[in-house]
Amino acid sequence: MAEMTEKIRNLFEQVPIASLSTATTDGIPNSVPVGAKKVIDNETLLISNQYFNKTLENIKANPKVAVTFWEGKEGYQIKGTTTIETEGPRFEETCAWIKEKGHTCKGVLIIKIDEIFGVSPGPGAGRKLA
Amino acid sequence: MAEMTEKIRNLFEQVPIASLSTATTDGIPNSVPVGAKKVIDNETLLISNQYFNKTLENIKANPKVAVTFWEGKEGYQIKGTTTIETEGPRFEETCAWIKEKGHTCKGVLIIKIDEIFGVSPGPGAGRKLA
Repeated sequence: MAEMTEKIRNLFEQVPIASLSTATTDGIPNSVPVGAKKVIDNETLLISNQYFNKTLENIKANPKVAVTFWEGKEGYQIKGTTTIETEGPRFEETCAWIKEKGHTCKGVLIIKIDEIFGVSPGPGAGRKLA
Repeated sequence: MAEMTEKIRNLFEQVPIASLSTATTDGIPNSVPVGAKKVIDNETLLISNQYFNKTLENIKANPKVAVTFWEGKEGYQIKGTTTIETEGPRFEETCAWIKEKGHTCKGVLIIKIDEIFGVSPGPGAGRKLA
């Protein structure tokens, strides 16, 4: 388990789009842009499932994900382990918000943060931060 | 093998940053932003290795990658198979270009395109295009 600092958390909340990467159990990566995202707490992210396809198939077989986001020269990669919720308060609350935006609502990904890395360009790229 | 259309190729060239995803052989995804990128031809991308760390380690063990890029509501995911070049004309030419930008030059990733998917939001997300 790892914790976001305020700086990392702020950037995750601020970027319009993050990249969500998954993989098959034999290592074929899949990566899609995601915009419907929230911080639950410093150790937990939420991403809404509206149109996931291969992403969902991968997560059901292999819950490991990487969430990467950047702005200018600042960027972070969060590695985490995902559970899928399709009922309960977090699902209902997200659905209300997603439907307001005119999208369908199929479930939420709850990502517990395992590790955080810097991905800003330069010799420190890839440094483990938490 | 799959081919980019002009529209896909143009967007890849135009976006300042794309996401490059790899995975360990047992399926832990890794994803980093990349800016030093080029089209070699409609079936081949080049990405410069300046500061790759886990990305390079993953590619050496497992050459499968996903390159995802978007702008506004348009986005694509290119799945490919990578070879690493650290000598020869493509390496030398890229190095000259990278050094001009003030970065170090360690090698180039040559990505042969296997498949292309749409990742624009909406019910068609994830559709295979080529």
